[in-house]
Amino acid sequence: MSESAPVRSQLDPLRQVLVGVERWSGGTRAATRDELAVEEPLEVRVRALGDAGQLAAETIAVIMRTPGQDDELAAGFLYGEGLLSGRAELAGIEPGSDADGLPSENVLDVLPASGVDLARRAHEAGYSRQFAVNASCGVCGKNSVAAACQALPPVPLAGLGVAPEVLYALPERLHSGQRVFAHTGGLHAAGLFRADGSLLALREDIGRHNAVDKLVGRALLDDALPLRAAVLLVSGRLSFEIVQKALAARIPIVAAISAPSSLAVDLARAGGITLVAFLRGDHMNVYSHAERLLA
Amino acid sequence: MSESAPVRSQLDPLRQVLVGVERWSGGTRAATRDELAVEEPLEVRVRALGDAGQLAAETIAVIMRTPGQDDELAAGFLYGEGLLSGRAELAGIEPGSDADGLPSENVLDVLPASGVDLARRAHEAGYSRQFAVNASCGVCGKNSVAAACQALPPVPLAGLGVAPEVLYALPERLHSGQRVFAHTGGLHAAGLFRADGSLLALREDIGRHNAVDKLVGRALLDDALPLRAAVLLVSGRLSFEIVQKALAARIPIVAAISAPSSLAVDLARAGGITLVAFLRGDHMNVYSHAERLLA
Repeated sequence: MSESAPVRSQLDPLRQVLVGVERWSGGTRAATRDELAVEEPLEVRVRALGDAGQLAAETIAVIMRTPGQDDELAAGFLYGEGLLSGRAELAGIEPGSDADGLPSENVLDVLPASGVDLARRAHEAGYSRQFAVNASCGVCGKNSVAAACQALPPVPLAGLGVAPEVLYALPERLHSGQRVFAHTGGLHAAGLFRADGSLLALREDIGRHNAVDKLVGRALLDDALPLRAAVLLVSGRLSFEIVQKALAARIPIVAAISAPSSLAVDLARAGGITLVAFLRGDHMNVYSHAERLLA
Repeated sequence: MSESAPVRSQLDPLRQVLVGVERWSGGTRAATRDELAVEEPLEVRVRALGDAGQLAAETIAVIMRTPGQDDELAAGFLYGEGLLSGRAELAGIEPGSDADGLPSENVLDVLPASGVDLARRAHEAGYSRQFAVNASCGVCGKNSVAAACQALPPVPLAGLGVAPEVLYALPERLHSGQRVFAHTGGLHAAGLFRADGSLLALREDIGRHNAVDKLVGRALLDDALPLRAAVLLVSGRLSFEIVQKALAARIPIVAAISAPSSLAVDLARAGGITLVAFLRGDHMNVYSHAERLLA
């Protein structure tokens, strides 16, 4: 077996690599190549207030992610953690450099706007240098529904109403979008849709929470938060963390193709979010706030 | 829709709850109940050295998990993080109390053995009070294959050899074991097997990394580490973090029913681990160190 470094695919350098593999079938074996979803660490750093760019920035998270839209991921992650409240607090996001001072694709420096001390906020929230975030992982400083709801009021019920037929049509639109972008099929997808079912944005990542962070980060960079009229659909299961990210972005309807967790349902109920899961064909389970569905 | 608190199922109070749900089909809707996998936070605390139990313990992580085998999860998590090196460093794991001093199912206090300062180790590794860990998430203080391999030498190639037919038989054994324990199907599973394919232990969790932590924690509590002669099989995909946990526990063969990530393959190659994925029927892909497979 070749132990050489993976060769980047020409098709989509950001999302997949070709690696050598032995394919075994019964007792036979054959050397071939296989496309794998890329997982690489992204170091998110914040520049200190008034920093002229000469001083080292402070690392606040290392996120295992599929490269691509890293500025969105960094912005959405900081927003979801409550460290960044909107576009106005952000001066920019720039590629950073590694320990040897060389530019790195896996380091991003977040530059706060004048008067915004991101590094201090991060310290106060308990972030530290050694601290890393896993692929499937958003990190939260809250450990319960109560804490989440104390930090964020419920999403108001007035506003968005959606017909069931619109929701039934979303999974196919998400899949169509994925077919355009993806090659490996090993990625989680998250999509933002309008009330009429049209697609606003689609993001993919090896970590399902990262795909949601990228969507919210895109909205933040476009100064389009809060997302009061959007529907979020995720390709897999629905955890507490995803509902928490939706609550922060004020997304009123959250849907999943697979199952929700118990705590995801609890938070959606308390947070005023319409939670739909097992969305397949013309069926769905509605776990909270069905008032937004126009039957 | 009822907004009442979930009712615990009689069948398996640890893994699932019954929640009220509206089942929509086309334009019709019916109120019913649905079993969901439980997701709840576990607060892991460490008692200070020489602490007589009167002082508050220090919180080092909040892990979103499916309740059950929480002592294993805490022990395996601390081991995977490099904070605990083996059974001898552990005096015990006890239920903790919440902020009001009342016993809580979601708090565990880890008591170090005499002379072991777990709280200091945690501080030095950068853990802090506010810091929470997601369901699918192990937290690591390393952000690359190089860092992981610097901390842990490769697993020696000598020792375990396994016939392909043994590996082909493992998924069905994992599924059989899951059918015995699970009701919801919404859980990730991880199994430890002997070289002859017999099952050593099986654990489930809403977070795939937690299931592996529980297995390693069980081994630690039984003083059975390192796991030099074991095969690890996970029900879903294989990430960097899972290979890292296997490397820490010295598990020589790691298999998955679904795809590995690029970084999981990189770490397995550098760490001397045989990585098998897409293990289905009598087929599998071998990404590293096929030398352990007895063709």
